[in-house]
Amino acid sequence: MIWLYGISGAGKTTLAHALEAHLAAEGVLTRILDGDELRKGLNRNLGYDDDARTENIRRAAETARLFLDTGIVTIAAFICPKRDMREMARQIVGEDEFVEVYVKASYEGCAKRDVKGLYAKAAKGEVKKFTGRDSSFEEPEAISSAIVLETERHGISRCTERILDVVIPRIHSRKSE
Amino acid sequence: MIWLYGISGAGKTTLAHALEAHLAAEGVLTRILDGDELRKGLNRNLGYDDDARTENIRRAAETARLFLDTGIVTIAAFICPKRDMREMARQIVGEDEFVEVYVKASYEGCAKRDVKGLYAKAAKGEVKKFTGRDSSFEEPEAISSAIVLETERHGISRCTERILDVVIPRIHSRKSE
Repeated sequence: MIWLYGISGAGKTTLAHALEAHLAAEGVLTRILDGDELRKGLNRNLGYDDDARTENIRRAAETARLFLDTGIVTIAAFICPKRDMREMARQIVGEDEFVEVYVKASYEGCAKRDVKGLYAKAAKGEVKKFTGRDSSFEEPEAISSAIVLETERHGISRCTERILDVVIPRIHSRKSE
Repeated sequence: MIWLYGISGAGKTTLAHALEAHLAAEGVLTRILDGDELRKGLNRNLGYDDDARTENIRRAAETARLFLDTGIVTIAAFICPKRDMREMARQIVGEDEFVEVYVKASYEGCAKRDVKGLYAKAAKGEVKKFTGRDSSFEEPEAISSAIVLETERHGISRCTERILDVVIPRIHSRKSE
């Protein structure tokens, strides 16, 4: 399980698709669980306060567990703003299979690109509980097992490579078990 | 998607595993979503009143949709006691991919076998909202697209065959699309 998290527009979905393409080329079956997509289906009845966000992550992690049990490498892309939420996801998925990746980008940088137009809306107060503005984002602890990718400093191929360098040996060691 | 439903002990889980074994032999990837299993994970925070049961089925159908989108034949085994719930599942999954199978057995027959000891508990009033006793089970309409399997009259291999006769041609026609 590759757990990508970070603020809106940091590059999580782009990374998820790049990872999927690379893993497909290696013959590895994958499933992307994307926060925006899940909120159109499984999580459509959830809001954005802390409890709803925790439930959003809990359901995602439980769904990931179902895919992992089917032998499918699962790539999650969620804002997942609090350490507690990440810790819960890790518990549900299981330490052994959880690769935590912080997709790091500055609020200002993401607001400037504003691919989905959300930052402009948030500036006008039109987005409820917007992470980084109305709701805090907790970075991982300085000493943590998370891979930190600064997407404003490094290109997509370098970021993808850093994750695959960790993930591919783990997939192969599982296969040979 | 093979949607198996019926009262507790009717044979849903047994059928699901038999179907999985047969489909695996055909090289078809499957995922079983079992009501009891999901209530230990994704649906652990749900009770047994009608609203909670509807949400239980909604989440199962949305999760099935995610598996179907990954190319995995999904087999659900839920009591799913109301026609409305089945209709909702069909809507979420999509008419084209939904094979509805009513796993039919009598309350008395299931109570007699009582594999999980639930009927004995229910008789003592120790199981909340037990389907067929405290909570009603709605059979499919007389004229419906559901396959009806009477598991007290026919053995597992005959029941499995009846489902596979419908499902396998549909899998092959999808592959060739």
